Amino acid sequence: MTGSVGLGRVLEPKGVLPQAAWRLDADPAIGPDEVRIRVRRLNLDAASYRQLAGKHEGDGAAIRAEVLEIVETRGKMHNPVTGSGGMLIGVVDEVGPDSPLPVKPGDLVATLVSLTLTPLRITDGLAGWDGLSEQVPAGGTAILFGRSIVGVLPDDLPPELALAVYDVCGAPALVDRVVRGYPGTPTVAVLGGAGKSGSLSLAAAKRAGARTHAVVVSEKERDALRGAGLADEIAVADARDPVAVAEAIGTPADVTVVCVDVPGCEHGAILATAPGGTVIFFSMATSFSAAALGAEGLAADVTMLVGNGFVPGHAEFAVGLLRSVPAVRALFEARIAGD
Amino acid sequence: MTGSVGLGRVLEPKGVLPQAAWRLDADPAIGPDEVRIRVRRLNLDAASYRQLAGKHEGDGAAIRAEVLEIVETRGKMHNPVTGSGGMLIGVVDEVGPDSPLPVKPGDLVATLVSLTLTPLRITDGLAGWDGLSEQVPAGGTAILFGRSIVGVLPDDLPPELALAVYDVCGAPALVDRVVRGYPGTPTVAVLGGAGKSGSLSLAAAKRAGARTHAVVVSEKERDALRGAGLADEIAVADARDPVAVAEAIGTPADVTVVCVDVPGCEHGAILATAPGGTVIFFSMATSFSAAALGAEGLAADVTMLVGNGFVPGHAEFAVGLLRSVPAVRALFEARIAGD
Repeated sequence: MTGSVGLGRVLEPKGVLPQAAWRLDADPAIGPDEVRIRVRRLNLDAASYRQLAGKHEGDGAAIRAEVLEIVETRGKMHNPVTGSGGMLIGVVDEVGPDSPLPVKPGDLVATLVSLTLTPLRITDGLAGWDGLSEQVPAGGTAILFGRSIVGVLPDDLPPELALAVYDVCGAPALVDRVVRGYPGTPTVAVLGGAGKSGSLSLAAAKRAGARTHAVVVSEKERDALRGAGLADEIAVADARDPVAVAEAIGTPADVTVVCVDVPGCEHGAILATAPGGTVIFFSMATSFSAAALGAEGLAADVTMLVGNGFVPGHAEFAVGLLRSVPAVRALFEARIAGD
Repeated sequence: MTGSVGLGRVLEPKGVLPQAAWRLDADPAIGPDEVRIRVRRLNLDAASYRQLAGKHEGDGAAIRAEVLEIVETRGKMHNPVTGSGGMLIGVVDEVGPDSPLPVKPGDLVATLVSLTLTPLRITDGLAGWDGLSEQVPAGGTAILFGRSIVGVLPDDLPPELALAVYDVCGAPALVDRVVRGYPGTPTVAVLGGAGKSGSLSLAAAKRAGARTHAVVVSEKERDALRGAGLADEIAVADARDPVAVAEAIGTPADVTVVCVDVPGCEHGAILATAPGGTVIFFSMATSFSAAALGAEGLAADVTMLVGNGFVPGHAEFAVGLLRSVPAVRALFEARIAGD
């Protein structure tokens, strides 16, 4: 199993996993369980692009030069300052005979693992990119390992819409699994219910039979969510204010889902959750120690889950929700248009 | 309820819970539902002490000075780097008329909530501490809120032994609960199995019917654990080396428990866990993003739990294990003697 996580691609330092590595071997020749992708576009992580743009004061040529240098130096697009990467779209070029991934040559796919662990070689000097956007038209090759995740892009959705769904697809799948573990009609509170992962989480909870309660940050978000039919109740509160969150929720929820990407939402989520309930943290801004010590300090008997970005079938599940719940699709399209 | 979680003690920033606060009011005058403790000893969190000792290269006077400065500045012993605290032993001094806690003046107690949310004032300059151990003889006062957890120290155990058990008592209780959720004879791997939370976790897993596998850092620890009868198998490996951990475990475990208080153990724990399995992170050095992105990058369908320090009955459960499993008591006594 260890071979298939890409250890053979790690050049420096030896022994760590590709994500933790400083430098990967991006040789386009694949091993028996690898897949080679012809790259069409990189989608840089927002934090990474912001850092590069700030450093070079918006000079597109300089930003482009640095991205090329990072990829050349590290064998992957792993911003050494922010530690983040992004994802990519491309066409499957060659599939090793032992690859377990469900793709074939010619498939248009998105990688669902981070660029920080994806061997990447750029061959066109990023000539089609002006350096002024996170969306990077690119020519070159990328490698997927045996143990990886890739999504074939659906024919019926614009690629940017599918990418936006794939970006957060772990959330609804895990919410579905957790909610179905509670008997009867559990109540599910979603902090940040109007966002991408939040609206998909609400839709998943509702489909799994839950009563849903959204907490959003503003009246504008409340109005956007109202009428979508995803939340039985909607309250406006600052998710970083634990007392306000607990008051907004009222009777504590069986499951609380944190989809707000700002630090400091742990305690409100814990206070909003009933004894025996579950808190699912999807925000990357979650502090492990704030969650652990906060629950202890509140004598709160709640199960706290690190939101795993992978659940088998998560991409299809999320796309299925988008297709079947027009309100979710409308929220996503509005967000993309607003980007 | 909100009053009893200590909001009135928060000086900065206003509106957050005491654990999230930068600074607390440690005034020894108590409110109606508070309890004041005369402090006898602090038990610093292992990750916190390690960070301080490393920063000051083992210079006890410098370590002591920094602990004093943290408590003076923040009104609590909340290490700003590790985010962790510890617990304390003391004697109940005054009980507010509205306190729901089952204590009376004169009781020798241990606080079972973190020092990171406990208003603390040190009055003896920590004169009795050489700075070279996590065990800190201390004079001063601490405050407990209405919604808190406190344990009266058992008569039949030395206070330092009871405190050491209470410090980690959330771990065996949660391990017990998780293991009993798996049918048959699940396998449980404990990274850091020779330590305090590790040995109690092994004992709890074994009592719950699991087959146990310990990973320890050195042959010395292996020898200490061997013969204790807590682990069916023991391997020596660096928990920060994911490949070494996976090889040490061999067949992936149903439940992996991380009790190693150093950063970087997330990926090894994930690799060592079978699909459908559970990773319980008890180490305060756990990185939320390393766990979340690591599982995604490895396409690992594992449930990842933030180790909640509170499970109802956890203190009695852990003390019960110590009383009934002589090997656990021997390991604890050896650790305390070695401190």
